[in-house]
Amino acid sequence: MKKAVVLFSGGLDSSTCLAWAISKEYKCTAISFFYGQRHDRENKAAKKIASILNVPLIELNLSLPWLKTSSLVDKNKKIPKGSIKKTDIPSTYVPGRNLMFASIGISLADAIGAEAVVMGPNAIDYSGYPDCRPDFYKVLNKAVNLGTKNPTLGKKIKILTPIIHKSKAQIVRLALKLQVPLKYTWSCYSGGEKPCGYCDSCKLRAKGFEEAGVKDPALEL
Amino acid sequence: MKKAVVLFSGGLDSSTCLAWAISKEYKCTAISFFYGQRHDRENKAAKKIASILNVPLIELNLSLPWLKTSSLVDKNKKIPKGSIKKTDIPSTYVPGRNLMFASIGISLADAIGAEAVVMGPNAIDYSGYPDCRPDFYKVLNKAVNLGTKNPTLGKKIKILTPIIHKSKAQIVRLALKLQVPLKYTWSCYSGGEKPCGYCDSCKLRAKGFEEAGVKDPALEL
Repeated sequence: MKKAVVLFSGGLDSSTCLAWAISKEYKCTAISFFYGQRHDRENKAAKKIASILNVPLIELNLSLPWLKTSSLVDKNKKIPKGSIKKTDIPSTYVPGRNLMFASIGISLADAIGAEAVVMGPNAIDYSGYPDCRPDFYKVLNKAVNLGTKNPTLGKKIKILTPIIHKSKAQIVRLALKLQVPLKYTWSCYSGGEKPCGYCDSCKLRAKGFEEAGVKDPALEL
Repeated sequence: MKKAVVLFSGGLDSSTCLAWAISKEYKCTAISFFYGQRHDRENKAAKKIASILNVPLIELNLSLPWLKTSSLVDKNKKIPKGSIKKTDIPSTYVPGRNLMFASIGISLADAIGAEAVVMGPNAIDYSGYPDCRPDFYKVLNKAVNLGTKNPTLGKKIKILTPIIHKSKAQIVRLALKLQVPLKYTWSCYSGGEKPCGYCDSCKLRAKGFEEAGVKDPALEL
């Protein structure tokens, strides 16, 4: 059975990616990261959903001191509220996050002989993060296949980004189709007990559900 | 003053890279990694040398459970002794190690505004590691500049590999020229109190000193 490593935060996007990988008949191993994010509530969501989907989850701690340059990590900084622009890099940008996460996923894939690392960056309802660009993953895939063991021996490893070109509404529809346990997913940046409704992530999620014409089950809990 | 992040294991190669970066007038921050390697003795060497060279050192723990697939991490596996071939990938290969290390260095560079990540892979006295290939770094550099913040804003980050095309003898000569405190550097894979003299790393180091026509000061301690 073909294997995949899935980078899994417990949010709407990566939960949909995990369900997608399962639907494509990959035997999945999920990885979640604590990196000091104020919304470590998402890690509980990841644990719950991985358990429901019966996928082994490796929980890693990557609390690097310099990540406090991000407002997503340093609680003394303010989270931007409702300012979704395509041009700016928001203060919630975490330096090199997706590059580091992808690299750690690649390491696991190279160790266990997985042919895919699945992750959920999104370039359409883009929040200005450079590490969500399709070109970045295209070139990173080339680097990976030059610098790891299994590809050198003829077994390629591919970073798959199944929702990178989808709108949030399309992601919601795909999640519904794949029966993602949406009510347990967590997207809010603010770190409270309930989604704040105002941060970029809450706004994007609400827009997606609205456009898909369905209620967000996570708001009903 | 221009800044660099230096990936620093305390071995001959990365110590030479650190001294090289200082000689090029970079303000350096070094990172060392504990990843479960049997020769964690090298981390003590890194600490000592960083202190002598007056460079701040960030010591990180990246003990990922799957790295035990490498004989460099799993003490129950045997370390190859004196079988330096250019073709095979040795059992000491650590999955995705240099990709992960580079990514973490890039993250720090992006956070502090450093323009270089300096690291010491070597493709000449090559021990068969795919993550020592020049092409890997060439393509990884492209990916980095697509997927991080500072390059997006016009300030490029470059992974520099100053010794990648040098023989071990050339590295020894460069180290002597740059006054690297060679006697404190640690290269042996075997994890004892003194270098074993038989592992690939000891053999390569001995060959380098022999060809350079000098005694290895680390063997005199």
